[in-house]
Amino acid sequence: MGLEADAALRERASAVMPRGMYGHQSVNRLPAGMPQFLARAEGAYVWDHDGNRYLDLMCGYGPQLFGYAHPEIDSAYVEQLRAIDTATGPSGVMVDLAETFVDMVGHADWAMFCKNGSDATSMALMAARSHTGRRKVLLATGAYHGSSPWNTPVPTGTVADDRAHFVHYVYNDVASLDAAVAEAGDDLAGIFASPFKHDAAIDQELPDPAYARRARELCDEHDAILVVDDVRAGFRMTRDCSWSELGVEPDLSCWGKAIANGHPISCLLGNDRTKRAAGRIYVTGSFWFSAAPMAASLVTLRLVRETDYLETIVRLGTELREGLTAIAEEAGVRISQTGPPQLPLIMFDQADGSRDTVLGDAFATAMLAQGVYVHPWHNMFISAAMTNADIDHALDAARTALRTHT
Amino acid sequence: MGLEADAALRERASAVMPRGMYGHQSVNRLPAGMPQFLARAEGAYVWDHDGNRYLDLMCGYGPQLFGYAHPEIDSAYVEQLRAIDTATGPSGVMVDLAETFVDMVGHADWAMFCKNGSDATSMALMAARSHTGRRKVLLATGAYHGSSPWNTPVPTGTVADDRAHFVHYVYNDVASLDAAVAEAGDDLAGIFASPFKHDAAIDQELPDPAYARRARELCDEHDAILVVDDVRAGFRMTRDCSWSELGVEPDLSCWGKAIANGHPISCLLGNDRTKRAAGRIYVTGSFWFSAAPMAASLVTLRLVRETDYLETIVRLGTELREGLTAIAEEAGVRISQTGPPQLPLIMFDQADGSRDTVLGDAFATAMLAQGVYVHPWHNMFISAAMTNADIDHALDAARTALRTHT
Repeated sequence: MGLEADAALRERASAVMPRGMYGHQSVNRLPAGMPQFLARAEGAYVWDHDGNRYLDLMCGYGPQLFGYAHPEIDSAYVEQLRAIDTATGPSGVMVDLAETFVDMVGHADWAMFCKNGSDATSMALMAARSHTGRRKVLLATGAYHGSSPWNTPVPTGTVADDRAHFVHYVYNDVASLDAAVAEAGDDLAGIFASPFKHDAAIDQELPDPAYARRARELCDEHDAILVVDDVRAGFRMTRDCSWSELGVEPDLSCWGKAIANGHPISCLLGNDRTKRAAGRIYVTGSFWFSAAPMAASLVTLRLVRETDYLETIVRLGTELREGLTAIAEEAGVRISQTGPPQLPLIMFDQADGSRDTVLGDAFATAMLAQGVYVHPWHNMFISAAMTNADIDHALDAARTALRTHT
Repeated sequence: MGLEADAALRERASAVMPRGMYGHQSVNRLPAGMPQFLARAEGAYVWDHDGNRYLDLMCGYGPQLFGYAHPEIDSAYVEQLRAIDTATGPSGVMVDLAETFVDMVGHADWAMFCKNGSDATSMALMAARSHTGRRKVLLATGAYHGSSPWNTPVPTGTVADDRAHFVHYVYNDVASLDAAVAEAGDDLAGIFASPFKHDAAIDQELPDPAYARRARELCDEHDAILVVDDVRAGFRMTRDCSWSELGVEPDLSCWGKAIANGHPISCLLGNDRTKRAAGRIYVTGSFWFSAAPMAASLVTLRLVRETDYLETIVRLGTELREGLTAIAEEAGVRISQTGPPQLPLIMFDQADGSRDTVLGDAFATAMLAQGVYVHPWHNMFISAAMTNADIDHALDAARTALRTHT
């Protein structure tokens, strides 16, 4: 099947939305063959408006951890919706959920819920400044922490003042971290870190434990706040804050995406040290206290605790990675697979080591044509709804794609 | 019944959330008798965890326009949830919704959907700066436009740079608007206006048409962008942007709260003049493209077009206002009721004209004890689920409350 219905939707969309679509789900900069609009989602699969089915390796850009339309999670949402959702006060389910996060996440003594990942990172910024009374915050160059005026990766429509007190360092580079702390001087409020380097369009990097430990040490020395932005990777690395595996506990961590398996909720978690400061900032939102996403999150967190979803996604991601390595070797192409296997990034290099974006785009197009939705330069996501057969299907498609295009 | 279950929830909450609760739904600053947590909502009523029932004059702080747990709207949500909600791309329902807003709202040629009211106002700020390439934006002193670092009413945790290019004017004061435009000089990007003055804890003011027209005129003269922030009042004033009744069309309008009757979605609407500029900013969110709230919004907008909800809420609000005026007179207390009757603000004055917050708090407490949820200093909201009998019940409670407390 083609993409005729999608093309018709795109034409209508371009009349009533700027550029026809915006944000991270716009396919404007992506290769041919990607549907812009999707009509159905179930388990590991999505269907476009032309009836084409895709194994979805993007998982909604992260929210999907246990599969689309998960019966138990969605039932909890619907049941709560019937009792109370958005109202004049939160439901008691908010207390249950805060207690559950505090129980599950090692560094967390409290929780504040919100809607966007950007809400959680903005709250972390404000809480760090509230706690210290200082202004300078360290960010890794190129790291994505949201799209508010202070952190959007595209400065159009913002002013330089929005970024007046950010000092940049190089992820995993202890010397650059030290230098940035020195530059901040006695105005250091905090250090932001992604759990691993997952910037778009470049190779991912796992965190160097020495870098993570140094970030913690510098915050302790300067009474500053360490923030781990786990919005994208939370619960895909471990059943705790992602840096807990390194023995490094932040003061604040930001969560979103998968914590309710696609239902709209994000949160900021913090330790006791930051609780008073967090209580002094004023942040809120029309739908932040809605009960239905919280009920869905409670079930999602139980599945995180009680199932082997994590071992499953690591195993499936590893099988995909190893299979692709073999297929690329067989086809004689240089494949670059970086970061944790359960958050795969697949790119290609030319013989001289430079990135082969032409092959990357062609690979994505060929995969889509065979019913596997892959992204050519953004990390992808494995979900617990995927099976060995799904990975085999993706590998078969990859074999054909690389045979055809090399 | 008492509030024992609520007290127990509050105690647990204080262990796992800063100050036990945060944001606009925290009752920390409110008088005794207000439940913090709610267990159930249906039609015009909410129930707390102790089983007390309240006629809810807050309507979730605005989202509730057609009544809680509205069968048709919620069914559309659930049906869409089963097909596709948060996924790797938006559903075609996003195009339907954008077209519907463009059809219904006079000044709108395009729509961008988001989650928080703050998202829509931040996008308006960025689009205004993107269009003009200038920095200065005019805000009315005391107006609430969200709680991002640039606009939160409490500066704790923010830096002065976040507000570097805002110039303030006095709502409804043409001379102060002219002065602010002069101060912005050739760096004027835009003017923000609430549809009416609905700042917390002070009397509301309807917009002076001369002020609205002057704001439009100044933006035209200076090629700047006029923004109406209709997040709170949208579709409670008219079936179009609120200022359309004054004959003034903004370039951008911000919407949220009631556009899906409590389901989480907000949006920025704009005219053709601003479309290119809006397409150049980078804004996005994990759940901005979720289909279920869009399906719920489509039904909500149909009810806006096809029912007499607006005439109903104006009539009920007027009956409440007139009844309260008579009751206050009878009780010999000075009541202050301002703004549109369907967004009632009820406060009391002392004989010398100063605000009587003691009576205001006592009135709220006494109303709550009789099963009517009122806020002592925030505007309230009438919904189309309310009936004459509900208003009579509220008036009976008010009669008793003012008899008891004077």
